[in-house]
Amino acid sequence: MKKFFLFFISSFLFSSSTLFASPASSDSIIIKKISDEILVSGECYKNLEHLCKKIGSRLSGSEGAEKAVAWTNELMKNYGFDKVYLQEVMVPHWVRGEKEIGKVINVADGTETEVAICALGGSVATDKKGLRAEVIEVKDFDELKKLGKEKIQGKIVFYNYPFDVTKIMPFEMYGQAAKYRTTGAMEAAKYGAVASVTRSMTNYITKIPNTGAMRYNDSITKIPACAISTQDAEWLSANLKKGGKTIFFLRMNCQTLPDVKSYNVIGELTGTQFPDEIITIGGHLDSWDLAEGAHDDGAGVMQSVEVLRSLKKIGYKPKRTLRAVMFMNEENGLRGGDEYARQAELKKENHIFAMESDAGGFTPRGFTMSMSDDKKAKIKNWQSYFQPFGAWDFTKSGSGSDIGPLSKQGTPLMGFSPDNQRYFIIHHTALDTFEQVNKRELEMGAIVMTMMVYLVSENGL
Amino acid sequence: MKKFFLFFISSFLFSSSTLFASPASSDSIIIKKISDEILVSGECYKNLEHLCKKIGSRLSGSEGAEKAVAWTNELMKNYGFDKVYLQEVMVPHWVRGEKEIGKVINVADGTETEVAICALGGSVATDKKGLRAEVIEVKDFDELKKLGKEKIQGKIVFYNYPFDVTKIMPFEMYGQAAKYRTTGAMEAAKYGAVASVTRSMTNYITKIPNTGAMRYNDSITKIPACAISTQDAEWLSANLKKGGKTIFFLRMNCQTLPDVKSYNVIGELTGTQFPDEIITIGGHLDSWDLAEGAHDDGAGVMQSVEVLRSLKKIGYKPKRTLRAVMFMNEENGLRGGDEYARQAELKKENHIFAMESDAGGFTPRGFTMSMSDDKKAKIKNWQSYFQPFGAWDFTKSGSGSDIGPLSKQGTPLMGFSPDNQRYFIIHHTALDTFEQVNKRELEMGAIVMTMMVYLVSENGL
Repeated sequence: MKKFFLFFISSFLFSSSTLFASPASSDSIIIKKISDEILVSGECYKNLEHLCKKIGSRLSGSEGAEKAVAWTNELMKNYGFDKVYLQEVMVPHWVRGEKEIGKVINVADGTETEVAICALGGSVATDKKGLRAEVIEVKDFDELKKLGKEKIQGKIVFYNYPFDVTKIMPFEMYGQAAKYRTTGAMEAAKYGAVASVTRSMTNYITKIPNTGAMRYNDSITKIPACAISTQDAEWLSANLKKGGKTIFFLRMNCQTLPDVKSYNVIGELTGTQFPDEIITIGGHLDSWDLAEGAHDDGAGVMQSVEVLRSLKKIGYKPKRTLRAVMFMNEENGLRGGDEYARQAELKKENHIFAMESDAGGFTPRGFTMSMSDDKKAKIKNWQSYFQPFGAWDFTKSGSGSDIGPLSKQGTPLMGFSPDNQRYFIIHHTALDTFEQVNKRELEMGAIVMTMMVYLVSENGL
Repeated sequence: MKKFFLFFISSFLFSSSTLFASPASSDSIIIKKISDEILVSGECYKNLEHLCKKIGSRLSGSEGAEKAVAWTNELMKNYGFDKVYLQEVMVPHWVRGEKEIGKVINVADGTETEVAICALGGSVATDKKGLRAEVIEVKDFDELKKLGKEKIQGKIVFYNYPFDVTKIMPFEMYGQAAKYRTTGAMEAAKYGAVASVTRSMTNYITKIPNTGAMRYNDSITKIPACAISTQDAEWLSANLKKGGKTIFFLRMNCQTLPDVKSYNVIGELTGTQFPDEIITIGGHLDSWDLAEGAHDDGAGVMQSVEVLRSLKKIGYKPKRTLRAVMFMNEENGLRGGDEYARQAELKKENHIFAMESDAGGFTPRGFTMSMSDDKKAKIKNWQSYFQPFGAWDFTKSGSGSDIGPLSKQGTPLMGFSPDNQRYFIIHHTALDTFEQVNKRELEMGAIVMTMMVYLVSENGL
């Protein structure tokens, strides 16, 4: 690409004079100020760098999580927000322990091959010597059921359910497959399995396994659960198809310690006209232990802080109260989201709107909405403001896990929706690092989030 | 992101049964086949890997360009396209020679600092010992003019025009700044400058300079022209602001050799009903010499081949003739694009539509159009087909450099428009490698391009 042959002579020409010529209003002026502030003097990218590089992984109950609480609290105080405070919440404290060991043993020829595994969050350990049993592959729960106790008893169940790459939206692929991670161990244990090995949640064929939450049912034996990379899953499956007995060995010494006191971190710009009408914008401060939690969800929390920072910086006095909330424990408990909603209920707070950014720090696509049709219609009136930034799609339902509990109070909920085709290469793996986040993409997300918060603050909902 | 709390319950649900429920038509069935074929069995990503890793850089006249012509010719023959042929064209042959040397010398304290520079494509060399002169900074041509001959004579002009990061579209930033690369040397020479140094064309602050085409005017002295990285530009500018005489040294031994015979590579599926109505889809096969030309424009050529491959693979018999064209010499001459249009004119070919992909292999945003309003309206009728893939924006004008010369014949032109916020980190630098391209993003682009070609082939324009 050398020339710009008639390139992008846009109907949304962005010179300062013609900006938003079509939906001309005083809102346009503020929106241009927001955009310029974040693109020229934005701080979310450098804040994310600090969170990733100086603090790092932040699993609930960990030292990293504690540091992240202290630092974000300090950060928002330094920005001079009207109120900055911690909201106490008890969180689970699961620890991985030393690096897991996984091996595949071909009984016929005696070959032993190491495979990378990682314990799923919440799993029990194997005993210290590890666990060794015949491995049996199933694609899904139907196949598991068909095999039944007779075939499953005493074995390790290998769930090899691949992402359906014909789905366009990455979260749709994830949504289909994730149950084999969250409940695979529990289901396998019903038939007497001794452990479960789940194909990693990604559409990419990589050597890196990804973790994520799993859960048990107290009435069913708790068996160890791990993930195997997609590449190793393909290899193992090919080997199993050749027939012959195959043993899987895993050693994990993860454990669940007693709950720990932690916090949601909350910053606030108090509304000047309707201080009791609260607009909450947030992401989750905790991350998995394997990486820096850059896209998941350092991006979302730093964008949420940026919303308040940029509005304050351009001198905007919000009509309604704006809150940036760094939720704790989205990944393995949702205790922070639950506690936030519980406190809101207790204090009879009136949340008129909440938005979450927890789908990656990628370029904007639009917003998902869970609210009444008339509120959706009101928001859709503002669509043309968002299109120049790439946020065109207002058709989908949804919001975010942390703000989900507010739905019981009838709060209109929204999710920031980025283009996350690249998400599942890095999701819940050691690759979710700061380097994977692009500055402009992160900033574009922060801009459209700030615009939305501004518009709701000004116009109500 | 752990859960999928009401996530993406889309109005465009992509289960095979409900696909395209809203714009139900036989087109929907073909579109679903195209999408599945490319997402499940797509070859553009692995073809791009071959082009980047087995062939590499492909500047016009180079061995790489020659190999790329031979390989893409072979590739399309192996796919069994109805016709595959080469279209001869003479191209410029500029070579960089050995790695350039750049230094900044502070006369007051005698310090000498190496800075990374690269010759701009088409530049003359310095003499073998290099060129040493006082450097003077200007932001733009206005400032150059104001300084005039008196201040410029005998000096090296340093154009320090930064990208305006308040622009949302990366190509808009580029469009404003690129003239200091293409014509900076010529303008500076008018005032007696002995060389020009241009700040690299990127909104990112990096240590890596980017190259690109520049041109001379035969009536003005030809002076050497190079680029300096944005980081070094910032540093040099800060030093110059301190005052005191500063010398810039550059050594480059690039040269322009005699023109070389090369080719556009053309593959064709012949139309079954209207074989004389031609639909051309293309990108440029040449790249700059510094990198693999993955995004620029290996992506575009491999997507263009994928359009024909996927349509053939699903058994589609096109009503109209479909051509994939790998244009030669977009980067420093546009000879391929000019020759293609000249031959079309000579042979009285009827090009009813042409599309180019040369804005990076990123996730789709939409299409730019240069055609009559009634044709735009016809295309906009199909918008709902493209939205699930993220291609919402049909508002902008434009097409692509290589197909531009067809406009003289009145051909309706279109550009594939991806989200290229990440483009100018890597554009025209050593970083434009295969690793920077995401498989799914590349495939999404190929899908929407194929869909568009299919719809025009079926319905005319």
